[in-house]
Amino acid sequence: MSNQSIKIFKGNIVFTKTKNEFTILENGYIVIKDDKIEEVSSSIPEKYKDINVIDHGNKLIIPGFVDTHLHAPQFPNRGLGLDKELLPWLETYTFPEEAKYSDLNYAKKVYKRLISELWKNGVTRSCIFNTIHKESTKLLLDMFIKSGLGAFVGKVNMDRNSSSDLTENTQQSLKDTEEILREYIDKSDIVKPIVTPRFVPSCTPELMKGLGELAKKYNAHVQSHLSENPSEVAWVKELHPEFDTYGSVYDHFGLFGQQPTVMAHCVHSDDNEISLMKKNGVFVSHCPHSNYNLSSGIAPVRKFLNQGVKVSLGSDISGGHTASSLHCMVAAVQASKMRWIDSEGELDSLTTSEAFYLATKGGGEFFGKVGSFEKEYDFDALIIDDRNLGELDITIKERIQRFIYIGDDRNILERYVTGKKIEEPKFD
Amino acid sequence: MSNQSIKIFKGNIVFTKTKNEFTILENGYIVIKDDKIEEVSSSIPEKYKDINVIDHGNKLIIPGFVDTHLHAPQFPNRGLGLDKELLPWLETYTFPEEAKYSDLNYAKKVYKRLISELWKNGVTRSCIFNTIHKESTKLLLDMFIKSGLGAFVGKVNMDRNSSSDLTENTQQSLKDTEEILREYIDKSDIVKPIVTPRFVPSCTPELMKGLGELAKKYNAHVQSHLSENPSEVAWVKELHPEFDTYGSVYDHFGLFGQQPTVMAHCVHSDDNEISLMKKNGVFVSHCPHSNYNLSSGIAPVRKFLNQGVKVSLGSDISGGHTASSLHCMVAAVQASKMRWIDSEGELDSLTTSEAFYLATKGGGEFFGKVGSFEKEYDFDALIIDDRNLGELDITIKERIQRFIYIGDDRNILERYVTGKKIEEPKFD
Repeated sequence: MSNQSIKIFKGNIVFTKTKNEFTILENGYIVIKDDKIEEVSSSIPEKYKDINVIDHGNKLIIPGFVDTHLHAPQFPNRGLGLDKELLPWLETYTFPEEAKYSDLNYAKKVYKRLISELWKNGVTRSCIFNTIHKESTKLLLDMFIKSGLGAFVGKVNMDRNSSSDLTENTQQSLKDTEEILREYIDKSDIVKPIVTPRFVPSCTPELMKGLGELAKKYNAHVQSHLSENPSEVAWVKELHPEFDTYGSVYDHFGLFGQQPTVMAHCVHSDDNEISLMKKNGVFVSHCPHSNYNLSSGIAPVRKFLNQGVKVSLGSDISGGHTASSLHCMVAAVQASKMRWIDSEGELDSLTTSEAFYLATKGGGEFFGKVGSFEKEYDFDALIIDDRNLGELDITIKERIQRFIYIGDDRNILERYVTGKKIEEPKFD
Repeated sequence: MSNQSIKIFKGNIVFTKTKNEFTILENGYIVIKDDKIEEVSSSIPEKYKDINVIDHGNKLIIPGFVDTHLHAPQFPNRGLGLDKELLPWLETYTFPEEAKYSDLNYAKKVYKRLISELWKNGVTRSCIFNTIHKESTKLLLDMFIKSGLGAFVGKVNMDRNSSSDLTENTQQSLKDTEEILREYIDKSDIVKPIVTPRFVPSCTPELMKGLGELAKKYNAHVQSHLSENPSEVAWVKELHPEFDTYGSVYDHFGLFGQQPTVMAHCVHSDDNEISLMKKNGVFVSHCPHSNYNLSSGIAPVRKFLNQGVKVSLGSDISGGHTASSLHCMVAAVQASKMRWIDSEGELDSLTTSEAFYLATKGGGEFFGKVGSFEKEYDFDALIIDDRNLGELDITIKERIQRFIYIGDDRNILERYVTGKKIEEPKFD
């Protein structure tokens, strides 16, 4: 074994192997070999005694955050127009903004700011919707590769029920998607294209069928929206009365777990849809801020967890206003408490460790062995200095809870992705 | 008229004279005379043409934020223990911390950090619960006076159903309260003692009666908690079956609007209680983050507003985790959207201007002519630099919305209280 490929970090190590509790190693060690976790232990293993330890003292070392749902072109709209529900908000704010991304100069300006914001907030992996535009999607893929952050980036597909400047020709949409998949699927280990039908109402059956085939052909991941809003669910039922649930439409076209798939929202998923998600291993991207802001409701996260459905967290910029995974964790816990009340105590609220799990390992699983400090996991990590949040003579578990609730990007000192320290992204 | 006492500020002026809309003066002028607003106008009035204008360029000028409910001694507990409901949370986290404030050195260390946090977040006026301790309450009053920020600070009264180290002797409790009122009621124009029965379950009728009399004698304001949690409401009903509502108990003892009164939470106030609040002019301090965190529920803010009850915003540190009025505004809007769903569309959600109103003029009214830029109002203001939030070529209304949703303390450049610029508080 060459010791050259080994790094050892020391500090207060916190992660969630399971959602039920924090695993905490006070003054513990993480041994990283070839950019992956080799082991985590309370004392330094004898065989590594000659290796220089990078000592982070009393700081916290936690997994990087994973954001499984956000829209790059909506970044400039954060905090705007949130007096509307989903469908009118799309028409008024979202679609006009998305039409601008045929202009690569404009796109680049926005993407720079988006990637910096993700970096700042310690979001080391993310699942991104771009627009319909092929060239700007490639630009965003290239910019993520340059940044060192991990991401799945999808050219959006939509060929019906959209404004004229965003409605694609079906064959052209598939052709552009395939071109991106071919060029980028193997270009980077951590930045990849993802098949991205916008949502059922904006995709013809022919387009969904073609996208399902492309996902399979290129072994690509899939992302879309599901059961966000009652009007949207009713619209899908009207468009496809032949299917039992909204999710069944995607399923029919090979876009519901046939390849690894994440579905954003799932606020109004019924028991049949939840069963299908469980059966197919479909991930939920729970986006509580967006579901609040667009008056969509509160997703039954406890029900998903009880039934073994995989759940992750999404910011849903700009339905959600904040890229902060901390804010999303807090909102997830808070929303679950309102759901606990609504269910008259049937659906337990989320604990802090569960929210942390959703924001790390829960979403990380969509990327592979990501989001935890277990053997063979990619070393994606954040170094947290929480001295400004109060006294440090409380337990490490209390310190991580306090950081989640009252910390912000200023507490994140360093970010690592697959073992490499990521500096603030700079683009020309 | 001496021009020496006149100051003129220029910038993009935003405030809410009424809750229904933002009043916006793009590149407008605020004329301040003797620390109060003289006028606000789009061009500089002729008679002031010789006065030097303090030009804030393209920045926003908004009223300072008003936080009508928070607990100073709970500041170190922010973000801790939020997996519990109100009553167990009080027992486990709150009361043990509050017992420490007989130690003035400990108290001072916490108060320094609290006042700095309020300053940082642009909270220019606040209503504060301290502990039962007389000396630490005086210390906190003195520290606020030194800081230049406005505050009502209350020595908490509790003489039943509390842990032994926090249960007061009734007469001593009244005596200590009177001593503080006598010494401080006229000491400062903007920092004053406030009568603060903790809540009905912890105050005997004798204590409440005495506090009502003291409030009247010293013409002092009153604050307490009301109808936060179903168990608490049931407990009050059990203690006082002779009263129609929880609020009626306070009312009976002269603590419900006989002097200006603010009641925190009011999540479970029924129609009778709401009518009494309206009749007596009692202010609600709506604390959405706390109500989420402690699983209390969502207050019927729209119902309060429809019925003409005065509503303000509270952080409720540390039931609420954040001192940011921006976060509280967003939570208020989001909570109202969930209440809109629960009421099947009967209770409209809050607009952004309504949330802003609650955080400025709504709470400011409790302090006098505070929280708006109207003639004779105290000039309490924040200068906002929002350049880092995105492009500035959107409307001023959109810029204020964006600041509310995605801004933070870093966007607050300057803070003014009654016309004076307030620097970051420094204590020995």
